[in-house]
Amino acid sequence: VPREDVGAGWELSPEFSARSSHRLVPMLELDDGTLVGEAMAICRYFEALYPQPCLLGDNPKSIALIEMWERKSDFEGVQAVAEVFRNSVPAYAERALAGYDVPVPQIPALVERGKLRVQRFYDQLEQQLAQHEYLAADAFSMADITALCAVDFAKRVKLPIPSEHKHVQRWHGAVSARPSASA
Amino acid sequence: VPREDVGAGWELSPEFSARSSHRLVPMLELDDGTLVGEAMAICRYFEALYPQPCLLGDNPKSIALIEMWERKSDFEGVQAVAEVFRNSVPAYAERALAGYDVPVPQIPALVERGKLRVQRFYDQLEQQLAQHEYLAADAFSMADITALCAVDFAKRVKLPIPSEHKHVQRWHGAVSARPSASA
Repeated sequence: VPREDVGAGWELSPEFSARSSHRLVPMLELDDGTLVGEAMAICRYFEALYPQPCLLGDNPKSIALIEMWERKSDFEGVQAVAEVFRNSVPAYAERALAGYDVPVPQIPALVERGKLRVQRFYDQLEQQLAQHEYLAADAFSMADITALCAVDFAKRVKLPIPSEHKHVQRWHGAVSARPSASA
Repeated sequence: VPREDVGAGWELSPEFSARSSHRLVPMLELDDGTLVGEAMAICRYFEALYPQPCLLGDNPKSIALIEMWERKSDFEGVQAVAEVFRNSVPAYAERALAGYDVPVPQIPALVERGKLRVQRFYDQLEQQLAQHEYLAADAFSMADITALCAVDFAKRVKLPIPSEHKHVQRWHGAVSARPSASA
């Protein structure tokens, strides 16, 4: 599926809905026709097939810490920003939840609550990155990728990294400079 | 930590907050003092140490499908029910988000939106369980455990499995009957 078609709402089309009632992207179709949704499920599929470079950990402790920080970056980062975005942008006035086939009106009070969540997320990142080069450990991992998505998404809703969060700034510069970040 | 202490708000105590600004349970402390939060991170830690019985998959496809359905059961199940619960129960009037050290008022509109999300979650389960004995594949997995938690939590906010969702009823009876479900 061309990227532009997703921007245009392809994932809500009758053609896609008929195959996946979840109506969400990304969605990976395996050779046997199985549909795999959820970004992290797709990541785990490819990591299981191609274990190097290792992004999801290779021992119990690194596996646990990457999962911990990836989930936090998704729940408390990406989803918090999405809450601000979905409940404030006029284009989503009746589409405040992704993938629904009924109108879902925005809840303006969620914009303020979402901003509180994003602030807390930045505080958690700052505390962790004050002690570690990367989020989950001392090596780049999937947790950094999800957190980078959260931070870059936050900029779009005018919630950039607070200037006093020096460790988040340092980390953001480093992970953004990786060649894969501009792919 | 005794279970009752968590019920009494132990996780919000100054003692715990000083060690973990996340102020959330569950939290596992490793022998080296590392704190691992997020339930699934703790599960992955133990699965990496003790791979049998396998609950998180042992090939790329099962790993992906379990992750997909575990995330859906958490995001669209547990978290949707929590949204109804946290925004309606009087005891949480100023604690609508877990782990915060500032008052977070309830948003009543989230109760209705949460009910819509729970309904959709039941619909997704029904569609999947009409074709599979268990959620992620044809073997019991972590996805079933999280979905069981969501359904049992939903009962507490008076959102039981709809009577027409026969496959969810069948699955719920089967997974609830496992000895581990009453542990």
